[in-house]
Amino acid sequence: MPPTITSRHPQDEQQEDADAFVRHLTQYSDGTVRLRNSNIELMDQDILYHLALGSESHDLQEMFGDVKFVCMGGTPKRMENFAHFIMEDIGYKLPAGTQLQDISAYSYRYSMYKVGPVLSVSHGMGTPSVSILMHEMIKLMYHAKCIDPIFIRIGTCGGIGVEGGTVIITEDALDGQLRNSHEFTILGETIHRPAKLDKKLARELKSLASPDDPYDTIIGKTLCTNDFYEGQGRLDGAFCEFSENDKMTYLEKLRDNGVVNIEMESTIFAALTHHAGIKAAVVCVALLNRLNGDQVNAPKEVMHEWQQRPQILIARYIRKVLSQNGQLKSFFGHQGSIKSPRRFKLVQQESQAHE
Amino acid sequence: MPPTITSRHPQDEQQEDADAFVRHLTQYSDGTVRLRNSNIELMDQDILYHLALGSESHDLQEMFGDVKFVCMGGTPKRMENFAHFIMEDIGYKLPAGTQLQDISAYSYRYSMYKVGPVLSVSHGMGTPSVSILMHEMIKLMYHAKCIDPIFIRIGTCGGIGVEGGTVIITEDALDGQLRNSHEFTILGETIHRPAKLDKKLARELKSLASPDDPYDTIIGKTLCTNDFYEGQGRLDGAFCEFSENDKMTYLEKLRDNGVVNIEMESTIFAALTHHAGIKAAVVCVALLNRLNGDQVNAPKEVMHEWQQRPQILIARYIRKVLSQNGQLKSFFGHQGSIKSPRRFKLVQQESQAHE
Repeated sequence: MPPTITSRHPQDEQQEDADAFVRHLTQYSDGTVRLRNSNIELMDQDILYHLALGSESHDLQEMFGDVKFVCMGGTPKRMENFAHFIMEDIGYKLPAGTQLQDISAYSYRYSMYKVGPVLSVSHGMGTPSVSILMHEMIKLMYHAKCIDPIFIRIGTCGGIGVEGGTVIITEDALDGQLRNSHEFTILGETIHRPAKLDKKLARELKSLASPDDPYDTIIGKTLCTNDFYEGQGRLDGAFCEFSENDKMTYLEKLRDNGVVNIEMESTIFAALTHHAGIKAAVVCVALLNRLNGDQVNAPKEVMHEWQQRPQILIARYIRKVLSQNGQLKSFFGHQGSIKSPRRFKLVQQESQAHE
Repeated sequence: MPPTITSRHPQDEQQEDADAFVRHLTQYSDGTVRLRNSNIELMDQDILYHLALGSESHDLQEMFGDVKFVCMGGTPKRMENFAHFIMEDIGYKLPAGTQLQDISAYSYRYSMYKVGPVLSVSHGMGTPSVSILMHEMIKLMYHAKCIDPIFIRIGTCGGIGVEGGTVIITEDALDGQLRNSHEFTILGETIHRPAKLDKKLARELKSLASPDDPYDTIIGKTLCTNDFYEGQGRLDGAFCEFSENDKMTYLEKLRDNGVVNIEMESTIFAALTHHAGIKAAVVCVALLNRLNGDQVNAPKEVMHEWQQRPQILIARYIRKVLSQNGQLKSFFGHQGSIKSPRRFKLVQQESQAHE
């Protein structure tokens, strides 16, 4: 009997089987994160050094059990800003007399802020720095028994054929040899793990771009490099052993391969989340079109506005998910501390006058 | 006629010729840094984005022309501490009413402090983060017309067969495949540059270890990895796909190859300084002996004291060079702000009592 048109494609079936297998390895039946490392549960305590947290020193489930969105980006400053932005956006109220605190301040390495179900964490620059953080964040999700968390990288990048200010959602992360994988050296052996992101999540994020946004939001391939200067074909590093012509030929080759942007973190971010069975996305804003030059020349105010664009998109997504889960109302339902902004201002002024 | 025993070995001659050639490429006749990139001098301005400095916005020669030692380490906190430590150690006095300021604060990426001829700069974690900084620091040396600067990385590491607290000076930096080079991907092509450090400088640093130091200071080979967990054979990452036996076999293989420590920055630091013709050294303290375990368990106070040890060695070196150049006396010659510590304390106390 010939197959009917409703039967599944063998490739789809294979993919679904593979996905189910990874899900079994990476998730308990209640949706909490399962580690692909049986050593951890046998340890007396697990110190997450670079986060300044520990499984026995801290009640990680109490602190982080409600986390649903782990947002990451390069600098502590950007992630502190994002924490305040998302707090305002989802209407999350802190108890009177409290303020956000950098949870990982004493690591002196990464910064971490928590706003209800959202973590906002800095990852530094380059794949090794992201690698260390990802190992510890995935272990944190396990210790905290977080249910089906979503990891999102919010970054900046150079555009290839797209103008500065464009928001780019990564479809596939490619390494320097244009492979859709990240290369690991483990016990001296080189292995590759697929640098796969969640395509459905990428499409969902794309769908949240508004026709009223005064900029484009696109999906495309992202090149991940290990250097900002020579590694991205820039002419303005301390060294340059190629011509402008060589550079342009290279950038055009990237464009012909569907690459729309270049950054320095996507392959490891994709490879480790995929290996951990965690849904993930990378959303960056282009700071320039590399086909037109190397140096970033936009004024500070413009750059600042551009960097908010990926944050706005992610905030729309977080609001949508929280709203679907009926959680958004509970945040907005809380009584805010300011009843009348006008009177609040008057009280402040009067108070300042009485030294 | 047979060669006399005073004639130079052909290999030495070759090495000397190569060194002279690199010196010609990387140094002007007055000893200032020459860039291996002719594009820079043709540019209207060169923005060092990640340092928040620019060749036309700042008078870089006025600000940095006297720099002789560029000390780098992972965290902003450690490098701020080192700046204060070296200020005390070389007797450098700030003008009344001033304090050290993070020169690169507005980059939100690296921190940089200047104490006379010493720069103390944080480089983040991993080779890509160091790579960006090195390009900009080398360009900074060029713009500032610094004469024959010396770059030193002050770090932490895991020891192989050496106890926690041991100070390790890197003889050769090896990559994950135990090659004495760093792999670069430039315009899609893979190239290797030798990860060579200055052997004479390493020996000189070793000679400054004191028999009275209550710890060992050794020279050996350093393995540089792209990850802290799987990449260093740790069993306690989010993933672990090898056995304890596999791990021990690997660490013992490292030891048999002369590797005494593992960190994450040495190959790029060595490769870029060597390529730039800049004398460089890597000095790290071991936080544990990896042959005995993976987690770092020493108490905070002990770790803190250990991290000062490489700083003490570097301070001895800086004092020695400044002293040889007759510069040390000029710092100590300055009138300090405190004439009598006892009376200074009394004045402070009295002042506090008058609210």
